[in-house]
Amino acid sequence: MDKTLYQLILASQSPRRKELLGYLGVQFSIQPSSLEEKTSKTLPADVVKDLALLKARDIYQQNLSSNLFVIGSDTIVVLDNKILGKPKDREDAYTTLEYLSGKTHEVLSAVSYVFDDQELTFYESTLVSFRELSSIDIKTYLDFNEYADKAGSYGIQGAAQSYIEKVDGNYSNVVGFPLERMITEFEKLFGPNWRERFA
Amino acid sequence: MDKTLYQLILASQSPRRKELLGYLGVQFSIQPSSLEEKTSKTLPADVVKDLALLKARDIYQQNLSSNLFVIGSDTIVVLDNKILGKPKDREDAYTTLEYLSGKTHEVLSAVSYVFDDQELTFYESTLVSFRELSSIDIKTYLDFNEYADKAGSYGIQGAAQSYIEKVDGNYSNVVGFPLERMITEFEKLFGPNWRERFA
Repeated sequence: MDKTLYQLILASQSPRRKELLGYLGVQFSIQPSSLEEKTSKTLPADVVKDLALLKARDIYQQNLSSNLFVIGSDTIVVLDNKILGKPKDREDAYTTLEYLSGKTHEVLSAVSYVFDDQELTFYESTLVSFRELSSIDIKTYLDFNEYADKAGSYGIQGAAQSYIEKVDGNYSNVVGFPLERMITEFEKLFGPNWRERFA
Repeated sequence: MDKTLYQLILASQSPRRKELLGYLGVQFSIQPSSLEEKTSKTLPADVVKDLALLKARDIYQQNLSSNLFVIGSDTIVVLDNKILGKPKDREDAYTTLEYLSGKTHEVLSAVSYVFDDQELTFYESTLVSFRELSSIDIKTYLDFNEYADKAGSYGIQGAAQSYIEKVDGNYSNVVGFPLERMITEFEKLFGPNWRERFA
């Protein structure tokens, strides 16, 4: 049986994803893709999967060494079929949070594994319900300065917990990517001792 | 209309609850209750509500100043009607995690507000589903040293995210207490400008 030892690379600059991946107990390095986040897809699930794959492929191709295992990922927030990206500024974040107020939105995170001659891409969807937010609520939240660089203008692991009524689905998927599902995929590829392939 | 300005006290030594309460954007101080966690109740929801109330009442009574608003809280993990407390040691944590493996358990957090001549106690229940854990999975998790002092021997905000398939309900309720529900109760008591009562 093939027992290739892979060099694991996370193709993301997100500190949340770095933290999450660290929980697996395997070695990895970080090499963010600087690819512009552009895709010809339009359906939310297709968009997020395509962006995850493009990032992973970008880093895989930049490295000439063999035995690479690259993880790419992307997260989007969707409400009424509209994709909400990262806010441009505080005002933009205010508008987004006002839009999320009192509603349930969907968070999609996709992950791509690119290694050997394989490309494996999957995603999970989690529903997040916000309470009704007053303008004071939104301002109080924005003062924590956690909105920047976050899809949907909030981070579920911080001060936004004040306003989140309910989560339905995988939690780490909202933080950065679906860690539990990633383990399932590692197990499918390498069996129960998958960690040994990244030691 | 009465516009008492309250001095808010958190009767808990949990760093998670301190962090969560900080997200409300109001001033508070911390005064943990050293009360032994004992109750004559047996039903999980009654147990957790009673312990939250006893802690809040303890701190309220220790302070002679008026205008106190004390928050007490307790969290328990329940599976098959069995209450899982904090682990005694690593071995005990191993046994608990093995028990939670592949199953959905319930996390109950109760909160008590004690102020003036009022005692208000409420709780929320959140379902958490764990994946099947191998003994390597459990050992990997225990090596992160996050199990101590946590009901159910895990902290949802850390490395346990590897193993949590699904959350159904309020998330902060699993971290420490149901922050969003607490805001709802503040609003019921003091109206939309409830923050001004703790400024």
